[in-house]
Amino acid sequence: MRERSCLSIILAAGEGTRMKSDLPKVLHPVAGLPLAAHVLGAARAAGSGALALVVGHGAETVSETLKTHAAGCRTFVQAERLGTAHAVLAARDAIADGFDDILVMFGDTPLIEAEALAEARQGLADGAAVVVMGFRTDKPAGYGRLVEQGGELVAIREDRDCSAAERAITFCNGGLMAIDGARALALLEAVGNDNAKGEYYLTDIVEIARAQGLRVVAAEVAFENVLGINNRAELAEAEAIWQTRRRRRMLLDGVSMTAPETVFFAHDTAIGRDTAIEPHVVFGPGVQIGDRVRVRGFSHIEGATIADGAEVGPFARLRPGADLAEGAKVGNFCEVKAAEIGPGAKVNHLTYIGDATIGARANIGAGTITCNYNGFTKDRTEIGAEAFIGSNSSLVAPVSIGAGAYVASGSVIVADVPDDALAFGRAPQTVKEGRASKLKARYQAEKDRRAAEKAARNQAATG
Amino acid sequence: MRERSCLSIILAAGEGTRMKSDLPKVLHPVAGLPLAAHVLGAARAAGSGALALVVGHGAETVSETLKTHAAGCRTFVQAERLGTAHAVLAARDAIADGFDDILVMFGDTPLIEAEALAEARQGLADGAAVVVMGFRTDKPAGYGRLVEQGGELVAIREDRDCSAAERAITFCNGGLMAIDGARALALLEAVGNDNAKGEYYLTDIVEIARAQGLRVVAAEVAFENVLGINNRAELAEAEAIWQTRRRRRMLLDGVSMTAPETVFFAHDTAIGRDTAIEPHVVFGPGVQIGDRVRVRGFSHIEGATIADGAEVGPFARLRPGADLAEGAKVGNFCEVKAAEIGPGAKVNHLTYIGDATIGARANIGAGTITCNYNGFTKDRTEIGAEAFIGSNSSLVAPVSIGAGAYVASGSVIVADVPDDALAFGRAPQTVKEGRASKLKARYQAEKDRRAAEKAARNQAATG
Amino acid sequence: MRERSCLSIILAAGEGTRMKSDLPKVLHPVAGLPLAAHVLGAARAAGSGALALVVGHGAETVSETLKTHAAGCRTFVQAERLGTAHAVLAARDAIADGFDDILVMFGDTPLIEAEALAEARQGLADGAAVVVMGFRTDKPAGYGRLVEQGGELVAIREDRDCSAAERAITFCNGGLMAIDGARALALLEAVGNDNAKGEYYLTDIVEIARAQGLRVVAAEVAFENVLGINNRAELAEAEAIWQTRRRRRMLLDGVSMTAPETVFFAHDTAIGRDTAIEPHVVFGPGVQIGDRVRVRGFSHIEGATIADGAEVGPFARLRPGADLAEGAKVGNFCEVKAAEIGPGAKVNHLTYIGDATIGARANIGAGTITCNYNGFTKDRTEIGAEAFIGSNSSLVAPVSIGAGAYVASGSVIVADVPDDALAFGRAPQTVKEGRASKLKARYQAEKDRRAAEKAARNQAATG
Repeated sequence: MRERSCLSIILAAGEGTRMKSDLPKVLHPVAGLPLAAHVLGAARAAGSGALALVVGHGAETVSETLKTHAAGCRTFVQAERLGTAHAVLAARDAIADGFDDILVMFGDTPLIEAEALAEARQGLADGAAVVVMGFRTDKPAGYGRLVEQGGELVAIREDRDCSAAERAITFCNGGLMAIDGARALALLEAVGNDNAKGEYYLTDIVEIARAQGLRVVAAEVAFENVLGINNRAELAEAEAIWQTRRRRRMLLDGVSMTAPETVFFAHDTAIGRDTAIEPHVVFGPGVQIGDRVRVRGFSHIEGATIADGAEVGPFARLRPGADLAEGAKVGNFCEVKAAEIGPGAKVNHLTYIGDATIGARANIGAGTITCNYNGFTKDRTEIGAEAFIGSNSSLVAPVSIGAGAYVASGSVIVADVPDDALAFGRAPQTVKEGRASKLKARYQAEKDRRAAEKAARNQAATG
Repeated sequence: MRERSCLSIILAAGEGTRMKSDLPKVLHPVAGLPLAAHVLGAARAAGSGALALVVGHGAETVSETLKTHAAGCRTFVQAERLGTAHAVLAARDAIADGFDDILVMFGDTPLIEAEALAEARQGLADGAAVVVMGFRTDKPAGYGRLVEQGGELVAIREDRDCSAAERAITFCNGGLMAIDGARALALLEAVGNDNAKGEYYLTDIVEIARAQGLRVVAAEVAFENVLGINNRAELAEAEAIWQTRRRRRMLLDGVSMTAPETVFFAHDTAIGRDTAIEPHVVFGPGVQIGDRVRVRGFSHIEGATIADGAEVGPFARLRPGADLAEGAKVGNFCEVKAAEIGPGAKVNHLTYIGDATIGARANIGAGTITCNYNGFTKDRTEIGAEAFIGSNSSLVAPVSIGAGAYVASGSVIVADVPDDALAFGRAPQTVKEGRASKLKARYQAEKDRRAAEKAARNQAATG
Repeated sequence: MRERSCLSIILAAGEGTRMKSDLPKVLHPVAGLPLAAHVLGAARAAGSGALALVVGHGAETVSETLKTHAAGCRTFVQAERLGTAHAVLAARDAIADGFDDILVMFGDTPLIEAEALAEARQGLADGAAVVVMGFRTDKPAGYGRLVEQGGELVAIREDRDCSAAERAITFCNGGLMAIDGARALALLEAVGNDNAKGEYYLTDIVEIARAQGLRVVAAEVAFENVLGINNRAELAEAEAIWQTRRRRRMLLDGVSMTAPETVFFAHDTAIGRDTAIEPHVVFGPGVQIGDRVRVRGFSHIEGATIADGAEVGPFARLRPGADLAEGAKVGNFCEVKAAEIGPGAKVNHLTYIGDATIGARANIGAGTITCNYNGFTKDRTEIGAEAFIGSNSSLVAPVSIGAGAYVASGSVIVADVPDDALAFGRAPQTVKEGRASKLKARYQAEKDRRAAEKAARNQAATG
């Protein structure tokens, strides 16, 4: 059988006043990805080959930002806000291209799952003209109720219009719909605005379709799928649900977490089997981690690749372009950015490695700094295999330390060091015996002088 | 109409044995503020112009500590502990000054809200002589029940004295009361101690007032308002409730938090709109943050001011007196205390800035240390606008780096650097070719020697 | 009365496929201790003098790892996996030694408590031949039901074999058993394998014992006691329950925690009274903390000892062998390992102290590094009492700094410094006036050159 074609129309024109933000609502992130990008992703995963985004408030910012998340997505501007049916019709040109299935979704429901959308599409495939996505709840007050009869959806009744019997219905309108593509335009155009607010309501197509003798059904989905975000508290709730889902999947796939509730993933975090994550770890976008890696507590990792058997943290900061080879180690209070750390190399303590390549089994001493920035350009530091960089060294880029070379502790290295060379860049030590107490006496005298001065000032002020 | 005058009497004499602490119970903190200071704050917010604190255990420490939280609060010592009515009468002199309303509260209920107190006061304004604050609970066992009749409070029945019908009452005594100021002394003095423990119970004034034909009512408040702290588990629960409340308010006011449950505020934290806070952030007292600030994960901030558009963290430590101007940046593993960071200035990596002023757009290299302490005095470091401090530099205070000056990486700066000057304070580099492997061979030999020595010792021990 | 002897048989042969791990299931940790070690510990705490471990999958790794947790524990290999009764009989030789009580437990139930085991043993002491540990649950579906009659256990009915009446039973089989030692072998040997899977089920001894007229009873325990771990999500749940239990105990014992849910203990963490722990702290094994210690946020502590009144963090990393004396302080971005920090000594900022001894009241400046490793050996740094180490110093071990000595900021110290000496090891400062702008112009030119080069490359690529 031919696969059914599908257009997803994502309504993303809302202002989101209650977000109290200059950022359009649908661009606020969950798991590091804009709300609407989650929806676009779910649509695509549900087999929707065509995507249409209806924007209004902050139209340019929204379509610009989402471009990277949905190649080929067409953008339509809803200039006036005259109701949901009106918003869908902003994408009239896309609908007119002809699709078997039309999915209508909202840009602020980031937890929508492809499975739920696929089920709605199945309803169309099974002969319905309209499929309304609904959810069950113990507290239906305030929601539109889905009135069913003989397996069909008879009406969506607004809370205020419910009879006592209808008020007891716990199956509620989730807002999302699937519409038979061949009939979509006709149904949408039949929607009128003869109501209190003078708006065109998408929900009206239920009755319109039924009046035409068409089949309308409701598809039950978990509430999360239709959870819309209206303020930042709800945004945080959606994030929490997303994280809980992802943590569980990670655990079941063989990642250990002592305290999953303190570990935060980004939308694209990938982690291998038998990798163990201690409490309090944050992953930004773009992280790939292999097997048997140890991610210790208080690590902050974004845009990094970590190969099998490596170890990071505690207190490690990996920034974009950090690339740790097998068995490499990045320890506490270390920052790595745009740098390859070779197999078995160690960067263990209080170190900044930026714009660098570190060879296999090299050892970078505590407090080492790659001085990669001179205020204008960023330059590279190359460190050869099995080199040893003494503690508290400064490597002033561009500079290269040869394989097996040895840099003495506390050195400032400004010129290349050949393979197997020993490099120094530090002053000789001098000791003045019996002088510490004299120095301390001087400091103590100054301390006393200041205290006396302060006391005099205070006395002057109060006297 | 004249505003009603109000005296709040806060009973803070309890020993708090179950806290297992040397610190008096009412001084244990929630959100960085002593329990009793929360109560004092709520009293004041409810319009109570006069405050009286009844102390007993650790009297001096308690009144001394709370002084800063409640200017003008009078302290009364309850020498013997003979019951709640006896405790209230310790403040007899304050009551005798004459007030329209008397509020009686406990020093260990930090979640009391001004609205709840105001409602109790309203009860007095509406003609009651006594208003008892009560709460509803599904599990009333153990609590005194509030027996009502015709809108009036008839009795507070202790759990053990309840009839079967009374035992089913779910409206319970919260302990807090509002008393008509004109009648308070007479009511309190009428309380006797003819009971098993020989104590004077405040709850007795309900029946005393009714016997005099006065009106007594109960005011319902949420349970949290009367939640008393008796051990540190309950203290932690109160903190959790406080944090949950505050996080929600922050979110609704336009602050983004990926994981609000990992962010901890102090009582006075103030944050502007469109500021985003990553997971795992702790705020101590005295923090003010502007709009569009980015607070990245694992930041610890106390006593700091952060202007619009600045960025801190991850892993930033801001201590009291850190003052970041617009667009300033303090990055990972950086500590800032008593220092102004100018507009657009950058302190990005592994740096300690203490007792300093940093000019606009200055760039402080990784690993820079302001050496502000000589063991006796603390001295200042001044860095001019657009200065560039090379990585791993030590700036020995008092010292001044001029505007636009350039300090080479790894320098120790002990004398002032003029504007536009280039300063060096580092040793020249020397390289000894082919010497690394010789040095390593020597270290390896020493390693072998130690291993052999250890093996010999072990053999001697077991042989 | 003679104390009853007891053998605990811990079944730890399971493969644990759903863990998706190379590590045998019973070795996965909760609170830093392998699952099976928790069970062994509970057995011992319940007075079980003899321990037998039945291993199968990963036998060698399991018995090797657990050896340190259970001295004197005998290991038995179950070569084939033919059911629980067969597994218990793998320990036949241990049983044959003769014990009053036999406890049969599973290696994957880490939350088993000694009290629950003791209660089961009490059942034997009271005359039962078999005691089955059961738990109550609202959702019994899937569990074997414990069918009781007249205070005796009549049968363990598998879910699929239940009558409608039995299906309503909420008392379920927890799997753990206590068996009369004198009858254990006979009962176990009477178990047959005439069932669908051809396995020998331990549960069969209930009916076997009853058929012999022996008394069989069920002992009710909380569900957690019998919670078996089958995947990492369940492992994380067990960890969470363990942590919640331990936190509560700590709080009630007088340890303050602002946010206990963000503090993670190891199995052996010991903390004194009036010690306060800020949010976000991780304890690894081997930590002992005294009274009135302040553990600030974002601290990671393992194998460390902290005396009364000391302070650590925020952002402190204490590793094994860190030993802080009274009133010592280790501050932000500091790492300490195998080092004694003397009374009142301060290590406050961005410092690495490894293999060292620091005297009383010594002050270690910001950015100080003990260079303890030369790539081959680790050597010690000794710092005397009241010594002052200037900021950003490198102390190249082996080296000794005398009492009261003073090391200037930015020094590299390679030779011993006597008591009261002043040591320098840094280059003199030179200043070149008016040169910063020239240097910057050069860097700017290079920046421009690169930008032009890049633009040309891009043009070539697209042209």
